[in-house]
Amino acid sequence: MGPITNGAAAAAAAADDDAGGVALSKAGESVTVREISSYSPVQESRLQHKPPLPSVFHSSFKLAHGPPSSAADNAAEIKKLFPCLFGQPSVELIPSERGELHRSLKVGVVLSGGQAPGGHNVIAGIFDYLEEHAKGSILYGFRGGPAGIMRNKVVVITEQFLFPYRNQGGFDIICSGRDKIETPEQFLQAEETVKTLDLDGLVVIGGDDSNTNAALLAEYFRSKNVKTHVIGCPKTIDGDLKSSHVPISFGFDTACKIYSEMIGNIMVDARSTGKYYHFVRLMGRAASHITLECALQTHPNVAIIGEEVNAHKQTLRQVTNGIVDVVCKRAEIGKQYGVILIPEGLIDFIPEIQHLIAELNEILATSVCDEAGHWKEKLTPPCRALFISLPHSIQEELLLERDPHGNVQVARIETEKMLISMIETELLARKHEETYKGTFKGQSHFFGYEGRCGMPTNFDATYCYALGFAAGALLHTGQTGLIASISNLAAPSKDWTVGGTALTELMDVERRKGKFKPVIKKAMVELDGAPFKKFTSQRDQWAVEDSYLSPGPIQFSGPTANDISYTLKLELGALDA
Amino acid sequence: MGPITNGAAAAAAAADDDAGGVALSKAGESVTVREISSYSPVQESRLQHKPPLPSVFHSSFKLAHGPPSSAADNAAEIKKLFPCLFGQPSVELIPSERGELHRSLKVGVVLSGGQAPGGHNVIAGIFDYLEEHAKGSILYGFRGGPAGIMRNKVVVITEQFLFPYRNQGGFDIICSGRDKIETPEQFLQAEETVKTLDLDGLVVIGGDDSNTNAALLAEYFRSKNVKTHVIGCPKTIDGDLKSSHVPISFGFDTACKIYSEMIGNIMVDARSTGKYYHFVRLMGRAASHITLECALQTHPNVAIIGEEVNAHKQTLRQVTNGIVDVVCKRAEIGKQYGVILIPEGLIDFIPEIQHLIAELNEILATSVCDEAGHWKEKLTPPCRALFISLPHSIQEELLLERDPHGNVQVARIETEKMLISMIETELLARKHEETYKGTFKGQSHFFGYEGRCGMPTNFDATYCYALGFAAGALLHTGQTGLIASISNLAAPSKDWTVGGTALTELMDVERRKGKFKPVIKKAMVELDGAPFKKFTSQRDQWAVEDSYLSPGPIQFSGPTANDISYTLKLELGALDA
Repeated sequence: MGPITNGAAAAAAAADDDAGGVALSKAGESVTVREISSYSPVQESRLQHKPPLPSVFHSSFKLAHGPPSSAADNAAEIKKLFPCLFGQPSVELIPSERGELHRSLKVGVVLSGGQAPGGHNVIAGIFDYLEEHAKGSILYGFRGGPAGIMRNKVVVITEQFLFPYRNQGGFDIICSGRDKIETPEQFLQAEETVKTLDLDGLVVIGGDDSNTNAALLAEYFRSKNVKTHVIGCPKTIDGDLKSSHVPISFGFDTACKIYSEMIGNIMVDARSTGKYYHFVRLMGRAASHITLECALQTHPNVAIIGEEVNAHKQTLRQVTNGIVDVVCKRAEIGKQYGVILIPEGLIDFIPEIQHLIAELNEILATSVCDEAGHWKEKLTPPCRALFISLPHSIQEELLLERDPHGNVQVARIETEKMLISMIETELLARKHEETYKGTFKGQSHFFGYEGRCGMPTNFDATYCYALGFAAGALLHTGQTGLIASISNLAAPSKDWTVGGTALTELMDVERRKGKFKPVIKKAMVELDGAPFKKFTSQRDQWAVEDSYLSPGPIQFSGPTANDISYTLKLELGALDA
Repeated sequence: MGPITNGAAAAAAAADDDAGGVALSKAGESVTVREISSYSPVQESRLQHKPPLPSVFHSSFKLAHGPPSSAADNAAEIKKLFPCLFGQPSVELIPSERGELHRSLKVGVVLSGGQAPGGHNVIAGIFDYLEEHAKGSILYGFRGGPAGIMRNKVVVITEQFLFPYRNQGGFDIICSGRDKIETPEQFLQAEETVKTLDLDGLVVIGGDDSNTNAALLAEYFRSKNVKTHVIGCPKTIDGDLKSSHVPISFGFDTACKIYSEMIGNIMVDARSTGKYYHFVRLMGRAASHITLECALQTHPNVAIIGEEVNAHKQTLRQVTNGIVDVVCKRAEIGKQYGVILIPEGLIDFIPEIQHLIAELNEILATSVCDEAGHWKEKLTPPCRALFISLPHSIQEELLLERDPHGNVQVARIETEKMLISMIETELLARKHEETYKGTFKGQSHFFGYEGRCGMPTNFDATYCYALGFAAGALLHTGQTGLIASISNLAAPSKDWTVGGTALTELMDVERRKGKFKPVIKKAMVELDGAPFKKFTSQRDQWAVEDSYLSPGPIQFSGPTANDISYTLKLELGALDA
């Protein structure tokens, strides 16, 4: 079946063949086709949506090669780790008068790591590219992430199988996984699979780690003369996989808009009720892009950006007192309510807490916590003081919640509740000092899963579909070791430019167990970047005045349906900082 | 200024006059006009939306009176409590050839209790009715709820003041409050205010309590020959204020759709990840309508309906085991994930917990909890057994979190976390018995504030606007003691019927402190009603199969924009049960 140009016809075709039952894939393997008879009205209407393509795909195209590439840092080490791939140029697709490539391909695709809205559309993009430009191709989906490659757990993706996932959230078409292909044995397993399936190409949809893995696989296959080429796609709602050529990872747009809808609603509630401080913790451990974007979308009274806390080596008390100062200022003008945004990874950004956790891990590994608390004497004085200053419930969490290696589980700490408790204590002190006369009631929220699997916005749907087309085109033109990259994203999608960036160009090395390991460094919030500058230029006003913005629910049609994130607009210079 | 027919013109007019600054209201009082220069794109586009009106408002109309009314129960007592109002007929607006009423009115409006999406549109409806049908009228908004009536805290509502709130969520235009007008002194204060303002009418927008209060005010004013008439409007996201003539309270539609969007996203995540059980607690203390509607919209694996738990006198263990059975069944077919919905008020529906809390309140009022736990011996054996079976954290919450009267704060108990903990314990036991071999990881969520203040759906925006028009028309035609009621809601809005239902018809009495008090009984989920029947006919399938539906974000345009809730469709017979 060809790519969908007529939604209704496609739906009918999908329904025709006993959708919801078991269908035979091209390979003869039986696969379950997802039931669409009971989709919600919005799901159904999104099935019919055909994302527009960058105009380069409307004609024949060829590759334009850039200059030789280098690395993000430590190029010499990267060159040693990627002897075959290092230095290869990035490429851009440009219109061409030559006829199309007609070679058919066998391609595998894998989803790696946490979900991000739009993943299904990347797969749809690869599928439709192959149907349109490489008739007779086969697209395999590896089930359950990289483990599916190692174990050759595979499904042939047909239009019938794919259709129910078009423009839908989640990764459930083939599911994902967090395994890595790391050991020589695992590389051999992967090699065996791609040889068994006779793959011309493999598309790895994932974050920084998964794309590093993609580069290593590409290098490995090239070095062993395995014909399989490997192309990466930038996925993560955290927004921390980006570079000059990869303006944004997919999923960030949708997740931030879902969180911002909820934050905006809570703001209206806060202002209407006038008696609660809402503390909203937002998913995103390593970087605070989500919190920053949500702040730009909603104008909270306070938003903590982890990178700033870390750059200024702030203590927990300084962070707390910063919020308390705002609470006090607002109380003076009669406002006993507000909204505070906190990045999930806040604790990881506070150096003194890192020290405390390191000491706790060491102490708890060798001794027990006696009831009387004598074990605390083993903490260094600053760490002891910090530990004692923490709310009782957080102390308990630090001591009791341990991972299988006995380490404190930082991720389990409900930072928003910890802050509320510490703020209550500080406000009580200020009441005694008579520097604060208000009332404070905290409400805590955590938004995470709600955003990871939302229906992709028009932006993410279109961006991902283009990424899939790009990945298909890069494989079709014989490329490997590149990450699909779409640029000019502030323009209408027809004007987006399409290409591939050398994965090695995004890389640096880290020393682990005495060896250099290649890594794609997470892109942190840049304190001299346009989004952060925009935020700092306005936050003092937001702290005191109520400049709340309520973005409302994501719209798929109408005047607001194609808006892009503030982060992207500001970074691309499409909005003044 | 007239009602808006041209959005852009209205926006310009609002902006004209230094919006965001201070404007002079008609009464000469200075009021702050809300800044709309920095609205989000969706907020801005909603400002321009003009809700369609029932066709009766497109022509002249007159009242058709129904038969004399009675009460929900104990009519004789209600008659004693409402000697002036009892028995008055409900009315319906019908087209008429007579010319319009031209008398101008002075009307006050008050928002009472918790927020519900659409409140602003009720006010807009009253305002626009008066502008269209009663030129020269004045609309006063009482600030901060019923306290604003007692203290005569009032703002004159002008088009400029109102415009920024059209179709927006929240109650922030005049804010709300939870005070009641109860004592003879408070009634006198209210009387003084309406006399000072020379009010012809007062519109009370609120839930069951507030509408009871509205009826008492109407009776009081009538008995004292005060000219002010009182009309109620049915507001509550909980959906528990309804009767045969008041098919639904406003806000329910929007809140349920917002929660269902989030639940749907979490379901996609659950299925994609395959390793978490998500426990979602949903706002709605007294009745489980929200949980039931969200279940119908999303098809969770389990949804607990409090009214059913109560009817079957289920114990906490029975509720827990019901969920555990589903977890075990799913584990047998390899599914270690799921989504469970829980009504906020679950605990209030479990008789044994009510007994425990009553005993705890009594014991804790007179004695201290000794560390050794001897105080527990004062509990009756069943309560002691129940208390000991509760997770440690819940025991602590029950003992420590007390309200100013020393009572256990049931509302603070995080039921979803309690259930997760109890399920873990039970699953461990079943593992020992070898009747369960799966893995279980719980994730907890609470959705409340996110839904109360969302932007009203098209349904709530239109319904509320019509309610406002109805309230205006009822006052204009000299009615009092009625609740505005719009019917035929499954039809297009032009065919909705408009009228007023005698508030006394919704009433029963309760005995409090030796006296009969009138109450509007909360409408609970009916176990023989169509929505619950629909749910029970499908839930066994949902438990095991993944029938998840993802409703997606609320749309304001496009094919899905005007869908109404399942509860309403089923109750009105517009969908087969």
